[in-house]
Amino acid sequence: MQLGVIGLGRMGQIVVNRVVDAGHEVVAFDLSAEAVATAADAGAEPAESVEDLVDRLGDDKRIWLMVPAGDAVDATLDELDPLLDEDDVVVDGGNSHFEESTRRADSVEAAYLDCGTSGGPAGAELGFSLMIGGPEWAYEELTPVFDAVATGPAGHDRMGPAGSGHYVKMVHNGVEYALMQAYGEGFELLAEGRYDLDLEAVARTWNNGAVIRSWLLELCEEAFREEGNDLGDVADHVAGGSTGTWTVQEALEQEVPVPLIYQALSERFGSRAPEEGRFSRRLANRLRYGFGRHEVAREE
Amino acid sequence: MQLGVIGLGRMGQIVVNRVVDAGHEVVAFDLSAEAVATAADAGAEPAESVEDLVDRLGDDKRIWLMVPAGDAVDATLDELDPLLDEDDVVVDGGNSHFEESTRRADSVEAAYLDCGTSGGPAGAELGFSLMIGGPEWAYEELTPVFDAVATGPAGHDRMGPAGSGHYVKMVHNGVEYALMQAYGEGFELLAEGRYDLDLEAVARTWNNGAVIRSWLLELCEEAFREEGNDLGDVADHVAGGSTGTWTVQEALEQEVPVPLIYQALSERFGSRAPEEGRFSRRLANRLRYGFGRHEVAREE
Amino acid sequence: MQLGVIGLGRMGQIVVNRVVDAGHEVVAFDLSAEAVATAADAGAEPAESVEDLVDRLGDDKRIWLMVPAGDAVDATLDELDPLLDEDDVVVDGGNSHFEESTRRADSVEAAYLDCGTSGGPAGAELGFSLMIGGPEWAYEELTPVFDAVATGPAGHDRMGPAGSGHYVKMVHNGVEYALMQAYGEGFELLAEGRYDLDLEAVARTWNNGAVIRSWLLELCEEAFREEGNDLGDVADHVAGGSTGTWTVQEALEQEVPVPLIYQALSERFGSRAPEEGRFSRRLANRLRYGFGRHEVAREE
Amino acid sequence: MQLGVIGLGRMGQIVVNRVVDAGHEVVAFDLSAEAVATAADAGAEPAESVEDLVDRLGDDKRIWLMVPAGDAVDATLDELDPLLDEDDVVVDGGNSHFEESTRRADSVEAAYLDCGTSGGPAGAELGFSLMIGGPEWAYEELTPVFDAVATGPAGHDRMGPAGSGHYVKMVHNGVEYALMQAYGEGFELLAEGRYDLDLEAVARTWNNGAVIRSWLLELCEEAFREEGNDLGDVADHVAGGSTGTWTVQEALEQEVPVPLIYQALSERFGSRAPEEGRFSRRLANRLRYGFGRHEVAREE
Repeated sequence: MQLGVIGLGRMGQIVVNRVVDAGHEVVAFDLSAEAVATAADAGAEPAESVEDLVDRLGDDKRIWLMVPAGDAVDATLDELDPLLDEDDVVVDGGNSHFEESTRRADSVEAAYLDCGTSGGPAGAELGFSLMIGGPEWAYEELTPVFDAVATGPAGHDRMGPAGSGHYVKMVHNGVEYALMQAYGEGFELLAEGRYDLDLEAVARTWNNGAVIRSWLLELCEEAFREEGNDLGDVADHVAGGSTGTWTVQEALEQEVPVPLIYQALSERFGSRAPEEGRFSRRLANRLRYGFGRHEVAREE
Repeated sequence: MQLGVIGLGRMGQIVVNRVVDAGHEVVAFDLSAEAVATAADAGAEPAESVEDLVDRLGDDKRIWLMVPAGDAVDATLDELDPLLDEDDVVVDGGNSHFEESTRRADSVEAAYLDCGTSGGPAGAELGFSLMIGGPEWAYEELTPVFDAVATGPAGHDRMGPAGSGHYVKMVHNGVEYALMQAYGEGFELLAEGRYDLDLEAVARTWNNGAVIRSWLLELCEEAFREEGNDLGDVADHVAGGSTGTWTVQEALEQEVPVPLIYQALSERFGSRAPEEGRFSRRLANRLRYGFGRHEVAREE
Repeated sequence: MQLGVIGLGRMGQIVVNRVVDAGHEVVAFDLSAEAVATAADAGAEPAESVEDLVDRLGDDKRIWLMVPAGDAVDATLDELDPLLDEDDVVVDGGNSHFEESTRRADSVEAAYLDCGTSGGPAGAELGFSLMIGGPEWAYEELTPVFDAVATGPAGHDRMGPAGSGHYVKMVHNGVEYALMQAYGEGFELLAEGRYDLDLEAVARTWNNGAVIRSWLLELCEEAFREEGNDLGDVADHVAGGSTGTWTVQEALEQEVPVPLIYQALSERFGSRAPEEGRFSRRLANRLRYGFGRHEVAREE
Repeated sequence: MQLGVIGLGRMGQIVVNRVVDAGHEVVAFDLSAEAVATAADAGAEPAESVEDLVDRLGDDKRIWLMVPAGDAVDATLDELDPLLDEDDVVVDGGNSHFEESTRRADSVEAAYLDCGTSGGPAGAELGFSLMIGGPEWAYEELTPVFDAVATGPAGHDRMGPAGSGHYVKMVHNGVEYALMQAYGEGFELLAEGRYDLDLEAVARTWNNGAVIRSWLLELCEEAFREEGNDLGDVADHVAGGSTGTWTVQEALEQEVPVPLIYQALSERFGSRAPEEGRFSRRLANRLRYGFGRHEVAREE
C-alpha cells in the first residue's frame, strides 16, 4: 500500500524505513529538505510540501504524522485537512494529549487515528508497540502499515474510539516513570548499602530468570556497563515529565490513587529544585531550631 | 558432579529435576517420605535421614538446602553441620535474611553459600536467577550445579562475601513489590478510567515492543486472560511482605529513601486492614465534622 | 458601616451575626425566606431580592457573597453586578478556585475581593482566618467588616492581587488534608500498636505543651471523647477532596513536589474505592500466583 | 518534695528550674562541675557524684535522669541502681527507645518510669508535655514533680506500663516529622507559586483562626520573621531522624501503613544525599537515553 509520512525526525525516519522495508510505497515530507533527502535515500518518494505530498498519494490517502505533540500537529492539520475527505485517514503517531486527539478527531474531515508509539529510537530494529484509537475501518485499512511499524501483528491493537490510543500511551508512560524509579531505588540501596557490588553483574543476573527481568532492567545493565558502577558523571537531573503529569491529572479526575507514579514524577521535580534546595526541607531544618534549639545548618 | 538436596517442596523438587536433567547425581532427603519418593521418581537417590544423605555423598560434600527460611534452616544445620568439615559446601537456596546468613556462615564448619533464588515455581522450565554470596572457591566448585539450576551461566553470579546473595535477593523482592504496584496503578486507572478497554489486549500490545515490557507484564496479560477483564473474584488482599519489610528496614538503616517500595508494602498492609477500616481515615472523616460540621459517614 | 450579605447558609449566618455584633448595619438576602428571617432575628435588615438588597445599601455598596463555590457565584454576579459600579465592592467568601476568582475580578464592574475563609462553623465564636486578594483600596474599605468576621485584625490580611486570597486558602486546605492524615497515622499506630492506650488522654497530654499541639489535635481529643477510644461506628469513608485536588494540580503545574498532600488526598480516594476493592492490589494478589504459585485470596 | 536530677544539659536545667520554682528541693549532679554550679545558682543543692547525690536524698529517693538516650542511660544506671531499692523511683526523661526502657524497667531494682518529654527548650516557660509509663504508685508519687515540669496537671499522664511513655513519645515525634513536612510543602508551593506572597503574613493569618493553626505554624511564622521570606541562608539539610526511624520500624512490625511519616523521614535522608545526588534519579536520567535517546544531563 501507499503511505504519506509528514515529520521526518528520528522517529519519523524509523517509520519510513520500516514501512519501505516492508515493501510499501512511502511519500515523505518535512520542513527540512535535508530530512526529506534522508528519507528519499531510504527509498521514499520526496514531496516538496504538504500539498505536493497529498497530490502524490492515490485516491484513498493514508497519512502518518510524526511531528512534535502540540501546536505542530494543529498547524499541520490546518494545512492538510482541507485537502482530504472522509475516506482518507490521518494517523497521529506522536505523544499528543488524548483530549487534543478527541478534539481533532471531531474537527477534521478525514478519519483520525491517534496512535501511541512506545519503544523509542532504541526500538528501531525490533519495531514498536502501537496503541491505537479511532474508527475500526480506518484501523483495519492501516493494518499493513501498523504491522510494519510495530513488532508485528501482536505489537499493535485498536484500544477503542478516538483518544483511547493516546490515553493508553499516557498511562503507559506513567507506569514507565514508576518502574524506572523502582529500579532506581533498588540500585540506590545496593550502591549505598553494606556490600561492594558489581551492579552490572547484579542486573545481568536478574535479567536471566529473575521475576523482575524486563527491558528497562536490560537498559540498567547497559547503563552500568557504559557509565561504570557509580554512573560516572551522570547528573541527578531528570528531564521530561509531561506525560507523567497528564497521568496524575487524569488519575485525580478519576479519583484513582497512583502514589507510586506520583512519587516518581515528584522525584523528577525534586531533581530540578532551585539551587538553594527544597524550601520544605529548609523550613523543617529551621523548625527543628524553633522548638528544639537544634543548630540550623546554613549555606556557606 | 554429586549434590545432596535437603528440602523437597515445590522449589526443592525443581532443583532436583534440573540438576538430574543436567546429568549430575542427586541424593535427596525430606522429612516427608512422599516427597523423597517423588524425587526418586525424578532420578534422585533417596536418603532416609540427614545423616544417611551425608553418608551417601562422596568425600567433598555439596549440599543444597531448600527449606523454609527461619528456624528450619537452623534446625537442619544443627543436624547437618557436625557431619561436615571445612572442605564441604552448604548452599542455602531459601529466602533467609542476610544477617542470618552471615551469622550461619560464621558459625558452621562447612563453607556456606547464601543463594537468593528468583523466578518462582513458574520459572521451572526456564531456570532461575541465582544471587550467591560466600567464598569464591565454594562458588566455583558449585558452578556446574548453578549452571543447571539457573537459566545457564548468565543466570547466576557471585555477588560478594557471605550474606551478599540474600542481600541482593532481598532488594530484588523490594523492587518486585514496587513493580507490581506500579503496573497495578496503571491498570487500575485504565479499568476505572474513561474508556472501556480490553486489558489483556493492552498488556499484550505493551509486551510487544513497549518500553515497559517485562515478565511481570506477561503475567498481567495471563491474569487478565485467565481471570477476566475485571479480575473476577480475585480479592483485594495481598499476602506476604517479609522480604519487602526487610528491604525497607535496611534502607532505613542505610538512610536511603525508598518511597515506592515503602508505598507498595503499605498497600499490602492496607489490603489487610481490620474490618472496620483504616483508623487514620476514620479519624479524618470525624475531624471534617469537628471543624466543618460535615456529616460523619457511619457504618450501618 | 453597612454590609450586604447574600447567601445565608451556616457560614453566611455566622458572618451576619459577627458583623451585627460588631455594631455594623447588615442587609441580608437568601433565596430561602426562612434563612432571611433567621438573619432578621439576628438584627439584619431583610431584603426580598438581590435588587432590593442593592437598593437598601447606600452609595458605596459593600456586599459579601457566601454562596456555594461554582455556578451559584456566577449566577449571583450575573444578577448583582449590573446594579453596581466601580466604587462598589464584592467579596466572595466561599471556596472558589483562584482562577475563577481572577476571571470574575476581570469581568465584573465592581471591585472584587476573593476571600478564603478558614475556621469552619466551629470557628463561629472565635472568628475566622481570612485570606484576601484584590485591590488594596477595597481591602482597606472593608477592614471593619474583616475585623468583625475574623478573629480580629490579626486574623485577616491582604495576600496580594486578585485570586491570591483563594490561592492561599487552596494551599491551606491541601496542608489541612496532610495534617489530618499525619495525626491519623500516629493514632492508627497507637490504636493498633503494642499498648492498650487511652487515646483521648494521649491527645490531651499532647495538647498541653507538646510540639505537635494544634487545633486539629484538640479536635482529635474531642473525637475520642465523643466517639470512644475506637471511634465507634465512624466509617472509613472520607468525603470531599476538591480543594486538595486543586492544590495537587497547581503543584503539578508549578513542578513542586507535594507527596504528603498527594498521599492524604489518595487516602480519601482509597476510602471510596469500589466494593470489590482496589484493582491495583487485586492484580498484585494475582501476580503473586503468577510467579510464585502463592494461593490467590478470593472473594467468597 | 525532694528530687534528685542527674544530667544538667539544657533540658536538665529547665527541669531543675521548674521544680525549684514550684517549691521543691532539688539535688543536682552532672559530670560537668560548671553545669552543677549553674543548677546551684538556680537553687539546687549541688552533688559531687552520683553516690553523693543519693546520700543527700532522704529515705524514698526520687531521681530524674536527663542524660542523652543510649549508653549514657545505662552507664548512669549501672552506678545509680546499686544504691537504690524497690521503694525508690527513677525517671528517664530522655528520648530512649521504648524497648530499652522496658528492658531497664525489668532489670533495675528501683521503680522505673519512662517519661517522654515534648516541648523542647522553647517550652521552658510554658512547661512540657510528659508521657509517662511504669507503675501507677510511682507515677502518683512523682505527681508534684510532674505538675511542675509539665504545663500543669493536664500536661502529664500515665500512658500505661513500662515503655508506654517512650512509645507514645516516639509516635509523637513521627507525627511531628510529618506535620513539619506538610507545612513545608504548603509554603514551598506558595514560595514557588504564582503570587508574590509575604509568608510571615500568611502564617500569621493562618495562626489566627484557621483550621491548621498550631504551635509549629507559630514557629513557621517566627522563622519567616527571623530568616526572611526566602529563609535566607538556611540550608536544605535536615539533621536528626532516629525517633522517626523507630516509628516507621514499629509501624512495619505492626503492619500499619504510615506513608506520610515515612515520606517525611525520607525527605530528611534525601536532604543528606551524597554530593553527586540521588543514585535512583541519576539512573532514571540515564535510562531516558537508553530507550528514548534523550540527552543525558551530566555533571560538569
